[in-house]
Amino acid sequence: METTTYPKAVIVIFGATGDLAKRKLYPSIHRLFNNNQIGDEFAVIGVARRPWTNDLFREKVKESIQTPITTDEEIDSFTSHFYYHPFDVTDKSSFQDLMSLMNDLDGQYRTEGNRMFYLAMAPEFFGTIAQNIQEYGLKETNGWTRLVIEKPFGHNFESAKKLNDELREAFDEKQIYRIDHYLGKEMVQNIEVIRFANAIFEHLWNNRFISNIQITSSELLGVEDRGKYYESSGALRDMVQNHMLQMVALLAMEPPIKLTTDEVRSEKVKALRSIRPLTKQSTFDHFVRGQYGKGEIEEEHVDGYREDPNVDSESNTETFVAGKIMIDNYRWAGVPFYIRTGKRMKEKLTKIVVEFKDLPMNLYNNGSGKKQTNLLVIHIQPDEGITLHLNAKQSDGTRTIIPIQLDYCNNCINGINTPEAYEKLIYDCMNGDATNFTHWDEVALSWQFVDTISKAWESQKAEFPNYTSGSMGPDDADKLLEKDGFNWW
Amino acid sequence: METTTYPKAVIVIFGATGDLAKRKLYPSIHRLFNNNQIGDEFAVIGVARRPWTNDLFREKVKESIQTPITTDEEIDSFTSHFYYHPFDVTDKSSFQDLMSLMNDLDGQYRTEGNRMFYLAMAPEFFGTIAQNIQEYGLKETNGWTRLVIEKPFGHNFESAKKLNDELREAFDEKQIYRIDHYLGKEMVQNIEVIRFANAIFEHLWNNRFISNIQITSSELLGVEDRGKYYESSGALRDMVQNHMLQMVALLAMEPPIKLTTDEVRSEKVKALRSIRPLTKQSTFDHFVRGQYGKGEIEEEHVDGYREDPNVDSESNTETFVAGKIMIDNYRWAGVPFYIRTGKRMKEKLTKIVVEFKDLPMNLYNNGSGKKQTNLLVIHIQPDEGITLHLNAKQSDGTRTIIPIQLDYCNNCINGINTPEAYEKLIYDCMNGDATNFTHWDEVALSWQFVDTISKAWESQKAEFPNYTSGSMGPDDADKLLEKDGFNWW
Repeated sequence: METTTYPKAVIVIFGATGDLAKRKLYPSIHRLFNNNQIGDEFAVIGVARRPWTNDLFREKVKESIQTPITTDEEIDSFTSHFYYHPFDVTDKSSFQDLMSLMNDLDGQYRTEGNRMFYLAMAPEFFGTIAQNIQEYGLKETNGWTRLVIEKPFGHNFESAKKLNDELREAFDEKQIYRIDHYLGKEMVQNIEVIRFANAIFEHLWNNRFISNIQITSSELLGVEDRGKYYESSGALRDMVQNHMLQMVALLAMEPPIKLTTDEVRSEKVKALRSIRPLTKQSTFDHFVRGQYGKGEIEEEHVDGYREDPNVDSESNTETFVAGKIMIDNYRWAGVPFYIRTGKRMKEKLTKIVVEFKDLPMNLYNNGSGKKQTNLLVIHIQPDEGITLHLNAKQSDGTRTIIPIQLDYCNNCINGINTPEAYEKLIYDCMNGDATNFTHWDEVALSWQFVDTISKAWESQKAEFPNYTSGSMGPDDADKLLEKDGFNWW
Repeated sequence: METTTYPKAVIVIFGATGDLAKRKLYPSIHRLFNNNQIGDEFAVIGVARRPWTNDLFREKVKESIQTPITTDEEIDSFTSHFYYHPFDVTDKSSFQDLMSLMNDLDGQYRTEGNRMFYLAMAPEFFGTIAQNIQEYGLKETNGWTRLVIEKPFGHNFESAKKLNDELREAFDEKQIYRIDHYLGKEMVQNIEVIRFANAIFEHLWNNRFISNIQITSSELLGVEDRGKYYESSGALRDMVQNHMLQMVALLAMEPPIKLTTDEVRSEKVKALRSIRPLTKQSTFDHFVRGQYGKGEIEEEHVDGYREDPNVDSESNTETFVAGKIMIDNYRWAGVPFYIRTGKRMKEKLTKIVVEFKDLPMNLYNNGSGKKQTNLLVIHIQPDEGITLHLNAKQSDGTRTIIPIQLDYCNNCINGINTPEAYEKLIYDCMNGDATNFTHWDEVALSWQFVDTISKAWESQKAEFPNYTSGSMGPDDADKLLEKDGFNWW
């Protein structure tokens, strides 16, 4: 799947004036260019409604670039690959003009007919655009054609299925690259390596030695200016259906036969299939929803969710989810996977904690000091690294046991050279590596699991707000683990 | 075994003018005093041939103290506990005078009749002194009586047995504290804790998951002014019979029922009993001896061992030993324990490397990058800590596997506050905790194992010198592992 030559393509970005394109896509493409991972055989066509010119577009691209630039020449040589195409989704001639521009650039940049369509825009147009790409012949090329889709991929299983059917009328499953940017994160990609490239952990990676696994992804920010979108989404759809369940799948999957896209995805699908389905009752037993009230973040007062101008003052939308997921297979029977995600929490972090079972016999029970449970912590963001929590003796001549930590800090060593998630995913897509994109089967299983939860929750008004901004969520999230004799680490 | 009150004792140090007393014992007693681990109920009687006075002795004690002192008063209050008793081993009245001094100090310092006899002198007098202590009634007290014996404990099994019989005429096994100062080292004591206070390693601590264990204890120094002693000892007796085999026992032993002295020692004895005995032939197959020639240490020329003025110019004495020890029990069958120790080597360090078996299947075989074997490294000295060598992915957007290290540095955190080995051992002895001293059964088994090696080696002149000063020993030490498909880490 790796190439020794540069990948070549015309990249068409729908939503070129949008936030994602500016914050993530242009800087990522620039880094790939700057790091010599793509050469000169590429062009980017920005597509959006606004009547920008190429020059204005290039100016905006230049502004978006975060890498320190050495010379104006270098930046001009980069932005000269960018072209703007004002566009009306409903207008047939727009697609025809786009095709002719693509063909021109294909010749000019020797991209061998390779075409990447990147849908970085409002999801309601995903289906229409894909079908128009097909209908107006934009896929008719000697090279490859790939469609990159941003989240949200549907609102529930039904709408996701409908969207997928629309896409599949125009593109094969193999041509569809569903972005879950968590799968581009360095330490999420490292889960597989930690497990399968080391001789010690995989032996312990089962219900004989692991008592539970905890995944936390907390944010400091509230909904900010996304209140309107968030009202119809909530944390469950925004975070659990995709990112959280993807991490569960990577942690729980069996070792694949090979590390090919198909084999890895097939094991992830199997893990997702093994998740014990919920009922309405077990949803209330195993899942906790929360919504932030007012509070303090970094010593400043912040409003509650319902006080947001774009939010219903009686909103029933959850900004926090904690849940217990049981995986009913031979490896994991009896081991809860706890997930927790929310906005306006105490700190911004994503981490995975693997808690090992205690020793069969604790020889140090009577000694002084506190023996800590052994933990393997995978820090995903903002810290990137691995910490192993062990016990050792205190260096004071006594037999006191103290907790120690063995640390590996990834971003301490590699610092800002660590590639951004989007950078890696764009590169993977250009090279035809779909491993770190979500297969439809994964999307479908995730929605089916999550739909039971949203239906149960919709059936009953929540007592919101139920956690203070700046806290780690509602008390019930702690009780969820306490019932099982555990606690969040 | 831990006390909440201060231990009380009169400590009699035979060999009070010697190097060990000055370098290790007085500074250690001072640190215990300074750290408030012993109170005012103690006295030290220095015993030796030289006609020192109390004042001179106290001056020497003061000079030996390495801890920064705040006031002269504090140091005087400490040295006021020290008394000197000039002494002739063969003179009956010497012992009688010593007894009367002990009785006086016992009253003066309220030491409740507790007496520690510390033999820090030439081993030829160990037996005589012990017997005289008994004969002249120095053991007749209401408190406890303990005998601390420095190495070497005999020269072979026969002489060790003879010495032990002499000691046992005067002291019970329970009263005899045989010093192996490696057992006082922080990270050697941590072996037990790492294994038995953590839930992850002990599951892997056997021949299913460990391929081999390597113990290296290397020195930069040559024999210095100890050439004469060393000629009759050699690395085998000086290092292997005691320190190296003790570390093997701690690594190999089964979890004891309890962490009491008797249970721990009993498991260590069982581990030593499980060592596959050598024959003359298997000695030459499994053990490598070496003697340093001239070379460079830290860019300065150093002489070879045979050039030392106190050493025979045709000396057959080994300054280096490497060996492969097989432990024939259910846990360790098939797992070699490699040991290596020598003088004038590349660096001064003692470390244990536990090498884990490779994965049953390596999914990353075809990827680029170098997958490293997983290692657990216990750094004993001069670094103190734990390193776990794992594999992770390189942070460059590729799938390259790179080795990473999870580190815990004990002396980085605790720095100079880590107690010295002698400090802990003296404190343990005062508190009657013999766990970190060597039982006779251990000494006996070690000598029996080592005697076969020395006999085999004595039967055949070695081709010395066979390693350059400043190297990691003779080539044969590397070949020893290469034959088994391993290498020294």
